[in-house]
Amino acid sequence: MIDVCLAGTGGMMPLKNRWLTCLWAEYQGKALLIDCGEGTQIALAQSGLKLSRLDTIFLTHIHADHIAGLPGLLLSLGNYGKTDVLKIYGPEGVIRAVENLCYICPFLPFGIEVSELRTNEVTQLCRNDITVSFLPLKHRIPCLGYSFTLKRKPVFNPAKAAALNIPQKLWSILHSGENIELDGRTITPAMVIDEERRPLKLTYMTDSVYCDKMIPFAEGSDLLVCEGMYGDDDSIEKMTEKFHMVFSDSARIAAAANVKELWLTHYSPALVNPEDYEQSVRKIFPNTVISKDGQKTVLK
Amino acid sequence: MIDVCLAGTGGMMPLKNRWLTCLWAEYQGKALLIDCGEGTQIALAQSGLKLSRLDTIFLTHIHADHIAGLPGLLLSLGNYGKTDVLKIYGPEGVIRAVENLCYICPFLPFGIEVSELRTNEVTQLCRNDITVSFLPLKHRIPCLGYSFTLKRKPVFNPAKAAALNIPQKLWSILHSGENIELDGRTITPAMVIDEERRPLKLTYMTDSVYCDKMIPFAEGSDLLVCEGMYGDDDSIEKMTEKFHMVFSDSARIAAAANVKELWLTHYSPALVNPEDYEQSVRKIFPNTVISKDGQKTVLK
Repeated sequence: MIDVCLAGTGGMMPLKNRWLTCLWAEYQGKALLIDCGEGTQIALAQSGLKLSRLDTIFLTHIHADHIAGLPGLLLSLGNYGKTDVLKIYGPEGVIRAVENLCYICPFLPFGIEVSELRTNEVTQLCRNDITVSFLPLKHRIPCLGYSFTLKRKPVFNPAKAAALNIPQKLWSILHSGENIELDGRTITPAMVIDEERRPLKLTYMTDSVYCDKMIPFAEGSDLLVCEGMYGDDDSIEKMTEKFHMVFSDSARIAAAANVKELWLTHYSPALVNPEDYEQSVRKIFPNTVISKDGQKTVLK
Repeated sequence: MIDVCLAGTGGMMPLKNRWLTCLWAEYQGKALLIDCGEGTQIALAQSGLKLSRLDTIFLTHIHADHIAGLPGLLLSLGNYGKTDVLKIYGPEGVIRAVENLCYICPFLPFGIEVSELRTNEVTQLCRNDITVSFLPLKHRIPCLGYSFTLKRKPVFNPAKAAALNIPQKLWSILHSGENIELDGRTITPAMVIDEERRPLKLTYMTDSVYCDKMIPFAEGSDLLVCEGMYGDDDSIEKMTEKFHMVFSDSARIAAAANVKELWLTHYSPALVNPEDYEQSVRKIFPNTVISKDGQKTVLK
């Protein structure tokens, strides 16, 4: 089960009533954050998220609206008592960007490991139980989409275990996938589980124009958080020139990728009422949410 | 007449309900800003201030809570159409800090001139009609206090001008300090003015422990905006170790410097209700304001 919060939904600049886009995902008390524009630490606090749980930051790209909040966030992490290493991942250029920004916060009480993902293809790394995939997007500068996949244990059936006279203290061993020897018998996990469960998948893609690999990358996501700079299709041409997507671009990706739910984000400051486009975008993909700052769900 | 707005009053980190300390002063349609922590651009917008009027930024020091909002502010200035040069002044180290932060906003549509004020004494520069003085403060890193002085025209007396039969179209020449020749007579400004007016003075000092030069530096200010990390005197020792001041430190400076009004700022995030200390600090200096974000006045 993953707790998800889209603490901000804005693009370009933070507004009085809209924080810059950033996604928080928490699993077993450890949290990761995607993107960190100016004010992100306040957005997180406003959504009631606990900075002390943050152990990894993923940056889509090094434009200011996705990274300028880093020095303040790092200092606040230090003030909240962080001492273990913080990992930061981002595209080509992120090491120098983080180094430069950290010029104004040189004495942090914890280490930072910054990794540059110079990838032309989908690449994966493992973080605890979560597999993280990176997709190079098409923006003015190197930019990555992220997808997080959490394998889940199969459903355990207590009735089957009881019928086999297996003491309850041994159930967790079987549930975690190991055989046990009991009274001369070998009990396998398959004998006490009901069914395998498909992994949970969370995907985040901004800023980019549409590219073909987005669909397989987001395929089957429980939640796709995707860029929508504007709601009307009149902006498509201009946004494509600027390497951004509008609501209908994202809705088409969501539909083609068979995701369960789409949350739109990264609204232009000029888009005052994104909810005006809810009905039209739901004609393309019904389970579209015109996200608001602090939008939350639990993936399970 | 100078329009003044203390758009933020916090220290260390921006909070949900308190922006980081920053002061806006506007004179004849041109504005200057002192300090620019994370979120300052939103604080300015929330106070209804027009970014397009900003032409100079003064930075007290390069700790993140006073400078981290710079990249976002610069980008927003560009988005609002700024093309003329922006001047930035700050203490030793400010050039490199601005260069580093600007790594994430490399393509601005206006130039930036950053000047480093490596001063051991009060130093002055002129900016339009305003004289700006800098005082080195005592903080962990180089830090400057700023004082702005605006000379004002003397009070013009229309009755005196009328009695001398001076046509109204010539009044502004006399008021600006020049003699005129009229019907064989030499009319001097002294013949038509009532009195000289003392200059307007605005002083801003944070972050620092007390130092002797603060009092002559702030002497006679119409408004002194000064640091108050905590309201209770129990914090003095700890704050002095950390190179900060509490409310009573600033009130004593205000009293000794004969300022008209003191606005406290740069509250610790741990100081939830600074107004709790209003009565006690007013015993030291009666005209103390426990500033709130967006505190405004007009100096005249």
